[in-house]
Amino acid sequence: MKLNNNGILAAKGFQAAGTHTGIKKQKKDMAIIYSEAPCTYAGAFTQNVVKAAPVIWDQKVLSAENTVHAVVINSGNANAVTGATGHNDTQTMAEVTASSLNIQKEEVLVCSTGVIGVPLPMDIVTQGICKVAEQLEDTKKAATEAAEAILTTDTFAKEIALEEQIEGYTIHVGAMGKGSGMIHPNMATMLAFIATDVNITKPMLQKALSKCVNLSFNMITVDGDTSTNDSVIVLANGQAGNPIIDQEGEAFEQFQSMLFEALKYIAISIVKDGEGATKLLEVEIQNAKSFEAGKLLAKSILTSSLVKTAFFGEDANWGRILAAMGYAGVPFDQEKVTLILESCVGSITLFKEGMPIKFSEHKAKRILEENEIKIFVEMGEGVEKVTAWGCDLSYDYVKINGEYRS
Amino acid sequence: MKLNNNGILAAKGFQAAGTHTGIKKQKKDMAIIYSEAPCTYAGAFTQNVVKAAPVIWDQKVLSAENTVHAVVINSGNANAVTGATGHNDTQTMAEVTASSLNIQKEEVLVCSTGVIGVPLPMDIVTQGICKVAEQLEDTKKAATEAAEAILTTDTFAKEIALEEQIEGYTIHVGAMGKGSGMIHPNMATMLAFIATDVNITKPMLQKALSKCVNLSFNMITVDGDTSTNDSVIVLANGQAGNPIIDQEGEAFEQFQSMLFEALKYIAISIVKDGEGATKLLEVEIQNAKSFEAGKLLAKSILTSSLVKTAFFGEDANWGRILAAMGYAGVPFDQEKVTLILESCVGSITLFKEGMPIKFSEHKAKRILEENEIKIFVEMGEGVEKVTAWGCDLSYDYVKINGEYRS
Repeated sequence: MKLNNNGILAAKGFQAAGTHTGIKKQKKDMAIIYSEAPCTYAGAFTQNVVKAAPVIWDQKVLSAENTVHAVVINSGNANAVTGATGHNDTQTMAEVTASSLNIQKEEVLVCSTGVIGVPLPMDIVTQGICKVAEQLEDTKKAATEAAEAILTTDTFAKEIALEEQIEGYTIHVGAMGKGSGMIHPNMATMLAFIATDVNITKPMLQKALSKCVNLSFNMITVDGDTSTNDSVIVLANGQAGNPIIDQEGEAFEQFQSMLFEALKYIAISIVKDGEGATKLLEVEIQNAKSFEAGKLLAKSILTSSLVKTAFFGEDANWGRILAAMGYAGVPFDQEKVTLILESCVGSITLFKEGMPIKFSEHKAKRILEENEIKIFVEMGEGVEKVTAWGCDLSYDYVKINGEYRS
Repeated sequence: MKLNNNGILAAKGFQAAGTHTGIKKQKKDMAIIYSEAPCTYAGAFTQNVVKAAPVIWDQKVLSAENTVHAVVINSGNANAVTGATGHNDTQTMAEVTASSLNIQKEEVLVCSTGVIGVPLPMDIVTQGICKVAEQLEDTKKAATEAAEAILTTDTFAKEIALEEQIEGYTIHVGAMGKGSGMIHPNMATMLAFIATDVNITKPMLQKALSKCVNLSFNMITVDGDTSTNDSVIVLANGQAGNPIIDQEGEAFEQFQSMLFEALKYIAISIVKDGEGATKLLEVEIQNAKSFEAGKLLAKSILTSSLVKTAFFGEDANWGRILAAMGYAGVPFDQEKVTLILESCVGSITLFKEGMPIKFSEHKAKRILEENEIKIFVEMGEGVEKVTAWGCDLSYDYVKINGEYRS
């Protein structure tokens, strides 16, 4: 069940705040999520060789096996490729947050997002943390302000709240995320935060997260660029009071489904808000030889600049889809391939078992005028179904990224 | 020595023609290259799983070990993903060319470039071949008309002619090529043709071609899309009369150097003419661990939409370069990395051994305003130097590809 009214604060026992501190000129730029009860923590992070300082901190905390109480997040500056200064600044952010909340610095996770290679303005950051910490609340307004404070080139806040009964206990999952450019997650994405009151062990939480990330964030792309700061963080404070989930079984499956729904919602929201995007593209590879083969094919289609510009132009130039599949690094038999485009107004078969199908350009244009387009690719080679999401490539992508630092 | 005045017809014994036949609305769309003397032939072709019908024909001819006399090329239609019809049409093109020139169809190579997935208009094509065959000449005008007839979204013809003394004999290498979009060659590129009068065996010709393609066409990218039709074809008719080159040695090295110069010139011309490109970007990876590592790093930088749009915006947003290196799939130590941008007006160090360097935005902007930019990346890990070429990503790329079929 989807609840739209309290975002990251859907679960019991969490507080949040988000405000403008001065890292950005005018927009909100800092948020804190806090749970008085200690949280089990699971995370998934960028596989980029160049990892931002806060990613390295959060990975250290993850391996230290302690519980956590808070996450502090700034936008407007990624604190990436900033050398030793960057690592000191992340540690200072954790220390100042800890002292504001009367906890230990090792109980604080840190995330940063924004421009790469510029040291953080630490006077502004430390004063900002104290200011945000004073504003912590468990209201809908606070949840939304936190979701707004983590945005960069995003045009809308991305929040979801879910509630389900698991073994007779009411479990909540709240989530918020950000991301619009430099989106091509590898084992993780831009920033996403999930707060839940489920009672679960750390290994089972990490297991659920890893599986859900693979099928959500790892299946989206905006521009093929894997960020230095991608992080997905789940905090579980156990306040729902359910018997602890410490093994696979029905309760674990139910929680994992909730988590997947939340992550998929945030992931698709990020693609919809892709820099300059005018259309959401969903690729479904049907009857692929393997999950990995299907994923490579789907992502090759969705990262092709030629495919992306064709959809921007509302042009059923399906040859570019076949060409992109052809260089995906996966052998296949084009005589078995069928290609169908679909939107809410109808569907059209462009290519069937190796042969182009004559189609009405008028009907194709009508289908492609919609904002959400599905691309079905039948491979006829196996039984795997793989779904991935991307967006088109527009003039505005060039505008946004040609002028980003200016 | 570079000769600019006879392009593909620099070498003795070759004739060419190019004209408008009606595949395209107005522009030239068909060319033939012909040598009365039989030619040794070497080729390099797309690695795309989806190969166009003419690519499969040319590969068959290559493996048949016979000599060839002619190449027929049409633009405006790629004859790719056209099923059994496409294969028949390619064979018909070879047959009609052969009967026009009084040779065997197995002595004719066929190339097509243009839109994917549309059957060739064979009435127009067969009449066109007869028309072009009648116009064969060995003039500069014929060479240029052939070079023009193979273009698609290109904005200029790409030709080069070279002359060198090898063992006292005058050897010529003439070349022409096309390509502007769907450029991310893998073992080959869009179309390039080289006609030489050197006397060389087939294995040595193929050896020289493979090495030169790896260092030229395989080091360029426009949009990360590997085409279905990429082909590089070299014809050597032996008319220079030099002692046959049948092994490695000084003569082979000299010829290989000529071939490399011709291929590199055509490859860089393709990048300069990249769809919507306003700037040529040259990445030089210095002291890489291996050639393969350097190549992955260079191509990751040059295919990043974020890097490309930053250069379009003349913005020294070097963090995007580091991020693109980070996801190239090559481990490296960022503490050893130094990054320098250079153009004809000067150079600027942005990042030195792991630390951002304060730089003048004014000076950086002045450097980036130029049309040709070099990006030097010092890795400090080995001894390999790897050079690759790409271009920026502009509004016009989106315009050209959003409207291509319309």
